[in-house]
Amino acid sequence: MTDRIADVRVTPIAFRDPPLLNVAGVHQPWALRSIIEVETDSGRIGLGESYGEADTLAHLQAIAPRLVGLDPFDLQALTRAVYRQVGGDEDTGAPYPPQGDKQRASALAAFEVPMLDLQGQVTDRPLYQVLGGAVRPDVNYSAYLFYKYARHHEDPGYPTDDWGEALTPAQLVDQARRMVDEYGFDSIKLKAGVFAPEEEIEGLRALRRAFPHHPLRIDPNGGWSVETTRRVMPALSEPGLLEYLEDPVPTLEDMAEVATFATMPLATNMVTIAFGHLPRSVALNAVQVVLSDHHYWGGLRATQQLAHIGRVFGLGISMHSNSHMGISLAAMTHVGVTLPNLRYACDTHYPWQEDEVIEGGKLAIRGGRLAPPPGPGLGVRLDRAQLARLHRNFLDCGIRTRDDASEMRKHVPSFDPTRPRF
Amino acid sequence: MTDRIADVRVTPIAFRDPPLLNVAGVHQPWALRSIIEVETDSGRIGLGESYGEADTLAHLQAIAPRLVGLDPFDLQALTRAVYRQVGGDEDTGAPYPPQGDKQRASALAAFEVPMLDLQGQVTDRPLYQVLGGAVRPDVNYSAYLFYKYARHHEDPGYPTDDWGEALTPAQLVDQARRMVDEYGFDSIKLKAGVFAPEEEIEGLRALRRAFPHHPLRIDPNGGWSVETTRRVMPALSEPGLLEYLEDPVPTLEDMAEVATFATMPLATNMVTIAFGHLPRSVALNAVQVVLSDHHYWGGLRATQQLAHIGRVFGLGISMHSNSHMGISLAAMTHVGVTLPNLRYACDTHYPWQEDEVIEGGKLAIRGGRLAPPPGPGLGVRLDRAQLARLHRNFLDCGIRTRDDASEMRKHVPSFDPTRPRF
Repeated sequence: MTDRIADVRVTPIAFRDPPLLNVAGVHQPWALRSIIEVETDSGRIGLGESYGEADTLAHLQAIAPRLVGLDPFDLQALTRAVYRQVGGDEDTGAPYPPQGDKQRASALAAFEVPMLDLQGQVTDRPLYQVLGGAVRPDVNYSAYLFYKYARHHEDPGYPTDDWGEALTPAQLVDQARRMVDEYGFDSIKLKAGVFAPEEEIEGLRALRRAFPHHPLRIDPNGGWSVETTRRVMPALSEPGLLEYLEDPVPTLEDMAEVATFATMPLATNMVTIAFGHLPRSVALNAVQVVLSDHHYWGGLRATQQLAHIGRVFGLGISMHSNSHMGISLAAMTHVGVTLPNLRYACDTHYPWQEDEVIEGGKLAIRGGRLAPPPGPGLGVRLDRAQLARLHRNFLDCGIRTRDDASEMRKHVPSFDPTRPRF
Repeated sequence: MTDRIADVRVTPIAFRDPPLLNVAGVHQPWALRSIIEVETDSGRIGLGESYGEADTLAHLQAIAPRLVGLDPFDLQALTRAVYRQVGGDEDTGAPYPPQGDKQRASALAAFEVPMLDLQGQVTDRPLYQVLGGAVRPDVNYSAYLFYKYARHHEDPGYPTDDWGEALTPAQLVDQARRMVDEYGFDSIKLKAGVFAPEEEIEGLRALRRAFPHHPLRIDPNGGWSVETTRRVMPALSEPGLLEYLEDPVPTLEDMAEVATFATMPLATNMVTIAFGHLPRSVALNAVQVVLSDHHYWGGLRATQQLAHIGRVFGLGISMHSNSHMGISLAAMTHVGVTLPNLRYACDTHYPWQEDEVIEGGKLAIRGGRLAPPPGPGLGVRLDRAQLARLHRNFLDCGIRTRDDASEMRKHVPSFDPTRPRF
């Protein structure tokens, strides 16, 4: 049997990120990711993408040499290697810790995607086929709106983005118009928790007027209290305004309380973010839509397991996104076409990124949709010149851990990210 | 891309089965199964085994031609073909029906295993590797004891089995001794619901005395009432007597009530037997161990999903068995080595079967354990002479639907299988 893993490379990169506002502050000029290459003895290369923060990076780099010699089909051997490095019960049949296990799940995902990419290459089939086949031809993504400044506080050494400022309802509508025109999105999400809820709801109403038929969501990222959420619930309950309300409040218990008076489904990528969270989440009916994310749920197979649990226990499924490159988008798309109960358009930050690390440049979302890149496996390959350039950015930018709050204090010295803010 | 499905054959067989007693009556002289062959355009043959009753057989034979042209990796296409034939929501993302869907799940499993066998052959890897890799080298099986008559009521046209009668505690111990000596089993299960509970508990006690360290289970198959179970609970609670109590009572609600006073875990292959049953089962904490069975849960991937749900929601996992051939045993073993939380020895009727349909005859369980047969895929091949012989049995035996109660009335004309019997 050939196609054993012969080399594993983890390369941190930094790419330009606009000054996007959220409850935690504002995006720094550089977003970090790690690019993972798993190469076999036959010269095939499987690709992955994960977080680029120092703690994740240290784990990934320590795990990488442990994978040499493994069969890319042997995901259990990957699991054992990850557990040995990141900790936890070596017997991988132990119950999931109720507090979650983001480092372990993230490390699993970082290497599982390249191994699945290799499985697709070995079998000469697209990755979605290795995952059991597709139920749809493409994945529906949503326009991901942000309040934003026109420019970063300090000159990051690159041209200011051309999206301009978005601090008012009219500016939000302009941002949405451009997103919808350029990408064809038919769902819209507003990242909120930045201004007072009433002000943000005015933004929603402006979006509703400008886009009468686009499903809308708002995501205060846990920035509201239960009482604030109760106060604004009548306004949010305007017929046809919201498809779902994402993470209005910061804890599972708070979400469960909001669920008792909410008139729309509650979604989350903050309180139910690990398998160990599910029993209590289900018992409390705290959330109705889980925004999956293969990067921290443990990979594409884990995403399928989560979606299946959603189908069994009546939870809706969509997808969460951080700032990312095309490797992540390809992986999200391959798994997305395999999930029968993926009924909501998925989030992606992709339109906010100008850099790209894959051959051929950015993948083209059209009509709001993206089909899995053609060809065996993930269907994307590294542009090594871009990888070298973005790695150089990483070395030069000095950022090793994401810190939106400190960045925000450059604009607003008194900024306090404590949640709930409102 | 080659290896498209070119031909699918479903062959019903009948094989000798001893007069094993259970709550529903007694096994008929012939047990029915169907043998499924999925052949690709490159001449590879994937194997499966399912129920042989008329209703299942009709569905399998109707689905078979719909699979021609499919990629054996495309399990979603299989799902669509099954749903088209067996019914249900064509959109396979619909919630699982709360009443279960045994025909659909059985049909899925019947063809999924051969498709996975083909995936293993295509990738030149054992089936467990296609399923993500193994966490252990082999699967632990249990001695499956039955009360039994010495011979069938009517001469079935074949030699009487050499296990003899087992109607008393001493005879049960003899049966267990032979099973343990021949196969090395280190767990013992008693199929019960045949005699009054106190009498069967005497059998358990005799087994405990003869086998002080073998985990013991008793399975009345829903033959007891809640009140009867309450009455015998003190006797069942003797320290060290039972590993778990399987299906004492016939309904989920009854199991939930028994769980409030049981001193040991409750196991089931009767009340939680489909994904649609899980939400209520979990909410009521009705059972603590689910005996999975890929034949009716929907296949090997579905078994992995079930085991994962068990891990997430704190349910133990083991495996259920009907009378079966080596194809089923190979499939159970391949998936069994992939389940991290498979902590109980699995049931198998295999020692009760003298016929076999695979090349080389019966697989050898040693030390109570079986490793996945070596080689790509399932690792077993059809013995076509045996297939022809067992198919001839099917044509000749006249049995088309299992009916243990009618068979029992030949021995005991007044037999009434209504549950609870005790």
